Amino acid sequence: MTTELLPDVLTGPLAELDAALPGAVDVRFAAHEVTDRSRVDAPAGVLAVVRPADVEGVQAVLRWATRHRVPVVPRGAGTGLSGGAVGVAGGIVLSTERLDRILEIAPADQVARVEPGVLGADLDAALAPLGLRYAPDPASWRVSSIGGNVATNAGGLRCAKYGVTRESVLALDVVLADGTLVSTGHRSIKGVTGLDLVGLFTGSEGTLGVVVGITVRLRPRPVREETVAAWFDSVDAAAQGLLAITAGTARPAVVELLDGPTLGDVDAHSGTSLAAHGDALLLVQTDGHGAEAEAAEVEAALAGAGGRTRRLHGDDAEFHWELRRTGRGPLEDELAVGEDVAVPLSRIGQFHREITRIGAAHGVSVRAVAHAGDGNFHPLLFADEVPGAAERLEAAADEVVATALRLGGTISGEHGIGTAKQRWLADELAPRVRELQAGIKAVFDPLGLLNPGKAL
Amino acid sequence: MTTELLPDVLTGPLAELDAALPGAVDVRFAAHEVTDRSRVDAPAGVLAVVRPADVEGVQAVLRWATRHRVPVVPRGAGTGLSGGAVGVAGGIVLSTERLDRILEIAPADQVARVEPGVLGADLDAALAPLGLRYAPDPASWRVSSIGGNVATNAGGLRCAKYGVTRESVLALDVVLADGTLVSTGHRSIKGVTGLDLVGLFTGSEGTLGVVVGITVRLRPRPVREETVAAWFDSVDAAAQGLLAITAGTARPAVVELLDGPTLGDVDAHSGTSLAAHGDALLLVQTDGHGAEAEAAEVEAALAGAGGRTRRLHGDDAEFHWELRRTGRGPLEDELAVGEDVAVPLSRIGQFHREITRIGAAHGVSVRAVAHAGDGNFHPLLFADEVPGAAERLEAAADEVVATALRLGGTISGEHGIGTAKQRWLADELAPRVRELQAGIKAVFDPLGLLNPGKAL
Repeated sequence: MTTELLPDVLTGPLAELDAALPGAVDVRFAAHEVTDRSRVDAPAGVLAVVRPADVEGVQAVLRWATRHRVPVVPRGAGTGLSGGAVGVAGGIVLSTERLDRILEIAPADQVARVEPGVLGADLDAALAPLGLRYAPDPASWRVSSIGGNVATNAGGLRCAKYGVTRESVLALDVVLADGTLVSTGHRSIKGVTGLDLVGLFTGSEGTLGVVVGITVRLRPRPVREETVAAWFDSVDAAAQGLLAITAGTARPAVVELLDGPTLGDVDAHSGTSLAAHGDALLLVQTDGHGAEAEAAEVEAALAGAGGRTRRLHGDDAEFHWELRRTGRGPLEDELAVGEDVAVPLSRIGQFHREITRIGAAHGVSVRAVAHAGDGNFHPLLFADEVPGAAERLEAAADEVVATALRLGGTISGEHGIGTAKQRWLADELAPRVRELQAGIKAVFDPLGLLNPGKAL
Repeated sequence: MTTELLPDVLTGPLAELDAALPGAVDVRFAAHEVTDRSRVDAPAGVLAVVRPADVEGVQAVLRWATRHRVPVVPRGAGTGLSGGAVGVAGGIVLSTERLDRILEIAPADQVARVEPGVLGADLDAALAPLGLRYAPDPASWRVSSIGGNVATNAGGLRCAKYGVTRESVLALDVVLADGTLVSTGHRSIKGVTGLDLVGLFTGSEGTLGVVVGITVRLRPRPVREETVAAWFDSVDAAAQGLLAITAGTARPAVVELLDGPTLGDVDAHSGTSLAAHGDALLLVQTDGHGAEAEAAEVEAALAGAGGRTRRLHGDDAEFHWELRRTGRGPLEDELAVGEDVAVPLSRIGQFHREITRIGAAHGVSVRAVAHAGDGNFHPLLFADEVPGAAERLEAAADEVVATALRLGGTISGEHGIGTAKQRWLADELAPRVRELQAGIKAVFDPLGLLNPGKAL
């Protein structure tokens, strides 16, 4: 790590920052603190991880960075999957982990104000006694920060019904590259004054500013939740089941798809026997006052498409949802590429057939889960570490992404572009669109200091 | 009108445009075709209303405008309430009314693609037989265009549950100021590739580009709808009823508030006797599989707050909703200012007390309806045309808007800024935020030709 190269006593610009923010400048950071969970290598040459304690500290860091032209990589909890929070050589990583206060919960207004370092699980724990909920629930919600969720416009399981992060963010306080603090948005549920900067910051992966305050919309916790599991003989059959749900009147909160290889992986890791029941599993959750009626409609639709359905209750239901979130095995010893494409709902079956074919053609293994309710696929491509395997994986990933685009989809449904998906950006965004985005970036960050080389 | 000043035979740049787009260039337009419903005066000096028939025509108009530096005011159906589509002297009005095709309805993907001139009612008529719905429903939905709804990020009644226009727009095709056609967004429900230009265009009031294609998200039509009416002795009591709903587990699709003076106005115009039942009316709609249970919870909550509730069915329910949308009288002979502020949910009662006080202090009449489910108020200030009345109205409007901001709200919940709300922009947006917005505008429209003087 870079720490070996640094002297005990800080000098130059870092010494100045250290003096301004005592205890916040860390040059003895660990590798995992300047990378994320994307399997992007930790970079060499990161100067420091800086952890300001408050908004004024963030402003001081950015004023310093502007003065000395030091690149700044904003970082939440480091759970990203696209390399968005990976440090850059010659730059600092600006962690918001100490800005972790829930500033306000206002049940009557159905809003909460939080600092960016608050974890989803912590906000949820504070809201539960009030009968309220912050809807976005990325699978990482127990360990990812809300600031990071805003940076990637994170999705999750429930967004089929409740929308992605953007739909729950009402206002943002943001420190711009030069250290200026600006407030955008409003505490009211609605508002259309001027251009939608809240939406622009959301999903911008720290390239336009550092989010230091977030006003989120809250919703009542559902009065009831019902879980339906349905096993199918193939993903194609499960996709037909999904279309049968879509054609009906139910609007499930969650529709998750696990393919056969994923079921096998969960079984191997979690001691379950999911794969014995079929080659694809749909897990559906309905919620609210109509949960029972909607679940009954969903069961009928899935059975009509050949599904073997079972209603899951209580701990059994929660156990299956937790298997979906965290039941898969680790991949440390294999080469792997995880993708995050999305396709139109009608293309889910076709897309899965094609990625299976692509995997076979390139000699790599493929398994996939999908937030099927909104067409968001997470294919995992992996291979034993043998000569040529990395190249085959890359080639297969290229084809998987191209297939999603060909079917009318996108290269990233919810993880963001970071560095990991940079090479496909031009496949989705036309040159003129990228010019517009670069122009916007230059308005916010004329020196190009904020998360350079990411997202755009 | 300006038409009187123009020769029969077009010359110069207009002749060139007329030759390129035969039949599209109209210099004999009526006054109402270059203004909207904001009571902003029709401007002098508008060169022409141009009505291209297709996307290529829109591109040709904008290339021409760029070449000759002619300002362009994009226009949908002209039903705006903020002056956003009002022409400017020396410029043209670019109407999208002929781009009125529903390009595609894809039930399996739950999306539709439309041209901007399609009216909300026309899309709804096409979707109804399929059991689908486009959720945004501004009160003007029968006569306003979806392109105009996108331009203002229009709200409506149902957005308490289903969100505003932005939440239903997946992709946009936009002609930029120089005539380039760009596509942003995706056909999948989710996507986070690059900065969110779809969100940026939505609500930008034609200042960044001309929307020529819109991909919208569809939802199932609710299997059931229930309507609860509740009369209260005061708006304050009704606001308490609203908070009682919010504190519960129901999530109504619509919560509308009509104050006493509004009830009197509806009665006078529509021959009803609403005001005889109380001094404030809440109209609540629940929908979906849980509609009955949610309506029962809402009734109990409202009764607990002192409301006299009644369940409305069938034609009776529809009649009351139509009274809410269109039951009020015209105002041709009076001076009036209609506002569109929003406040946090907990402030609805307080806000109404304050605007009543403000009206009394300035000697102007006030009545208000509100999309109370999301805190969006439409106060109407009016006065007889006597000397000094206009000034008193303006002063009262200033105070109403300042009050909304002081309570944590916004100057425009759903109508947009246009020209009518320009004078309050600086009260809501800090100078640096306005600089950022101006910077973005310059990236998209460096010559400043698109809807100059509006929105920003």
